Amino acid sequence: MRKKAENCTIVIFGANSDLASRKLFPALLELAKRGHLPDNYLIAAVGRAGLSSEEFRSIVTGKLVNSSPAIAHDQFLPVFLERLRYLQADLLVPGDYQGLRRQLEDVSAAGSCGSNILFYLSIPPGIALQVVRNLGSAGLGGRQARCGGWRKIIAEKPYGTDLESARELNRVIGEVFSEDQVFRIDHYLGKETVQNILVFRFSNGIFEPIWNRHFIANVSITISEDFGIRERGAFYEETGLLRDIFQNHALQLLAAVAMEPPVDLAADSVRDEKAKLLRSIRPFSGDEVPLPVVIGQYEGYRSEKNVAPGSTVETFAAVRLFVDSWRWKGVPFYIRAGKNLSQTMTEIVVTFSCPPQNYFGPAESCSYTANQVVFRIQPEETIAIRFGAKRPGEELVTDPVFMKFDYQTSFSEKGLTPYHRLLLDALEGDQMNFIRQDSVEYSWAIVDSLKAMLKERVPEPYAVHSHGPDSVQELYG
Amino acid sequence: MRKKAENCTIVIFGANSDLASRKLFPALLELAKRGHLPDNYLIAAVGRAGLSSEEFRSIVTGKLVNSSPAIAHDQFLPVFLERLRYLQADLLVPGDYQGLRRQLEDVSAAGSCGSNILFYLSIPPGIALQVVRNLGSAGLGGRQARCGGWRKIIAEKPYGTDLESARELNRVIGEVFSEDQVFRIDHYLGKETVQNILVFRFSNGIFEPIWNRHFIANVSITISEDFGIRERGAFYEETGLLRDIFQNHALQLLAAVAMEPPVDLAADSVRDEKAKLLRSIRPFSGDEVPLPVVIGQYEGYRSEKNVAPGSTVETFAAVRLFVDSWRWKGVPFYIRAGKNLSQTMTEIVVTFSCPPQNYFGPAESCSYTANQVVFRIQPEETIAIRFGAKRPGEELVTDPVFMKFDYQTSFSEKGLTPYHRLLLDALEGDQMNFIRQDSVEYSWAIVDSLKAMLKERVPEPYAVHSHGPDSVQELYG
Repeated sequence: MRKKAENCTIVIFGANSDLASRKLFPALLELAKRGHLPDNYLIAAVGRAGLSSEEFRSIVTGKLVNSSPAIAHDQFLPVFLERLRYLQADLLVPGDYQGLRRQLEDVSAAGSCGSNILFYLSIPPGIALQVVRNLGSAGLGGRQARCGGWRKIIAEKPYGTDLESARELNRVIGEVFSEDQVFRIDHYLGKETVQNILVFRFSNGIFEPIWNRHFIANVSITISEDFGIRERGAFYEETGLLRDIFQNHALQLLAAVAMEPPVDLAADSVRDEKAKLLRSIRPFSGDEVPLPVVIGQYEGYRSEKNVAPGSTVETFAAVRLFVDSWRWKGVPFYIRAGKNLSQTMTEIVVTFSCPPQNYFGPAESCSYTANQVVFRIQPEETIAIRFGAKRPGEELVTDPVFMKFDYQTSFSEKGLTPYHRLLLDALEGDQMNFIRQDSVEYSWAIVDSLKAMLKERVPEPYAVHSHGPDSVQELYG
Repeated sequence: MRKKAENCTIVIFGANSDLASRKLFPALLELAKRGHLPDNYLIAAVGRAGLSSEEFRSIVTGKLVNSSPAIAHDQFLPVFLERLRYLQADLLVPGDYQGLRRQLEDVSAAGSCGSNILFYLSIPPGIALQVVRNLGSAGLGGRQARCGGWRKIIAEKPYGTDLESARELNRVIGEVFSEDQVFRIDHYLGKETVQNILVFRFSNGIFEPIWNRHFIANVSITISEDFGIRERGAFYEETGLLRDIFQNHALQLLAAVAMEPPVDLAADSVRDEKAKLLRSIRPFSGDEVPLPVVIGQYEGYRSEKNVAPGSTVETFAAVRLFVDSWRWKGVPFYIRAGKNLSQTMTEIVVTFSCPPQNYFGPAESCSYTANQVVFRIQPEETIAIRFGAKRPGEELVTDPVFMKFDYQTSFSEKGLTPYHRLLLDALEGDQMNFIRQDSVEYSWAIVDSLKAMLKERVPEPYAVHSHGPDSVQELYG
């Protein structure tokens, strides 16, 4: 069994954010209900508004009920709400942090020095930089905790907006917190099916021997959504798909499916290998014709709220990249992600080479029947192998069929939601499923080289609920 | 599409046998119904009794209805019955074969020389020897057909009772028929799921690289039945399990799962590899202590009809054997077969070695989670892979789960029954799924060395519907 987390205060910056409303508070409630939080915990939201804790509790109640109406009648809800505090401070005003510090000492019996504090940054990267600086100035940083209490900080994506800003953010955080106190969250890494990629690869002896360039023809990662940017026009105009999805989720999935076996399962052993993999990705140089990337923008994007009429922000990207390592040299990796596509679906398809001898069909190609391992992350949670089987009947011909494992139907245990799991990991100090400083920077370096290659290229329009721009087909060649 | 078989007469010796009643006539009816028989075909049963064809037809009708009551109302039945003929001859009287020859000329419009004849031997090996000799003497043999018509012969198991008798039978048949006219039937080879073993192995690139001693820990073949010898006491007393099941079905399954990739799918390319595999099995020498074999007899066997009160005939055998080849050296193959066991089931389980690094469990063993490929031949027709997956929840632990492909639910096409398929193959001259002379002899050599090692060993008793004698566990060590 895991050890129970120590008593602590969870301090949330950005408690009004979309993410906090939809994910963070529901996960905290669930953690508390399941007894996963320590005996004495407090959840403190920091904000400029002059709210009482009572007023804040009713705001949170509204958000929780909005995310799941049944919560209104949950008998545990009042117990949870009682642990909530509202602390007033302007995040951007350094002077307010001394007050914040005193308020934290007040709410926490042990005082701010002896007590444990987990800071949760659910705020844009520019503001995060200020908040971390201010925490440091007020003596609330992790490196400054000297009398027994621990300090940790969880930072939400986007973690920077390019390599330079990410480096700056890492540098500032590094002054105030040591790396083992920093938890850069990507909720994809909290998904059971993503964690299962490592288990699948490394708890089974039969896949690793064929998991390389000698047997694998290509790897394809798809992260598609059947909805648009919703109300987040301002955010999206600043960000775009490459920064929002590609830099983190997509490259993290790539790292999981392609990394070398780690020395052991210690957090840094796994993160060493992920960083190594990301560092092995060949930077984009722009020498290739046509470019190994297609960007798109769904029709109607420019009419969304808070979007510029002539916006050239991409809502779709398809990229072909290569991992320059002994294992993967020459194997194309395709990443495709976008908004307003035909379905909401995340999957990784590993396609193997044709058998060297084709007894059962035309020798030229096996595209119809080539073996595949398919990790479906969502909406289904399945792992399947495509293989050739004999079609019943007189003829000796093969048809592609699937051998399938369904996570949901195969286990009676219910998994944790990603935020539930990752909060638990952070409280307990397990960093395996958080992104380390070096990986963040390697990922941004790839995105930067991709953006530099694209220059001022305008995204191709694509129809809502289509498969993206037509020219994607050429990329897959 | 396959070519349509040429017009011919199918001549059955042993039309009264259990096999002919339960399998052969239903398969012939089905073949005829599906249009798989040539336009002009006749089915002639040969026997000593003085029956008219009309009387014979009503006997066959009774058998067909017995096997499937719905047949009584099948409108196609009269069409089929009309093709049936009864020819009178004593199988053991050489002089009767001239009469048989004339009768065949009479029933077949083209005369016996120009017409095509498929002989079907559903008779014990001793009698089969006589029949083949008599066919030869009467000029009905395959080597004697000189004016355009073909001759083929299908021989049912048991094909001999030991190496010497099998060689004698092969020699005599070889004088009268050439090897390409001889179809030694083992109905297991007509099963879709057995044919699918080759397709699975050789139409998929991902299994062959790990299909060897470097990755496979052991292979286990089970052929169990939950019923006893039924009314076949006399037959079983002569035969026993090793001759009835092990020599043919079990060793053929072993050959399919372990053979090298053939040059192509020509019948003799596949049969070359099967013969080579059987020849690679290390003969039993008796030097091993304890012996690598356990034989058993179910309790109550000695009270069955036509069984000797002190019978030492085995109704169960479990054997550990080795294939001395580059691919398989040192990998134990376990074969277990028996009557009156806990269930009726045929399967092949290929168990892989533990992963070299065990991140997710105790280092000593992976017996609980080791990868397996499981070919279930009957009653289900499935292929499954056992692998480790992450148990949902907080802990990073693995549980064994199955990825499964079900032949029945994955295809809408209905397969052919084994006899249907094999009769079709024989009519069309495709020998791939028939056992060649050399394989028969290699198989008998193994059984002979096994029996020599067992000497006069008395089988261990086991309870009806158990898993066999207790000492089997030691064999698996």
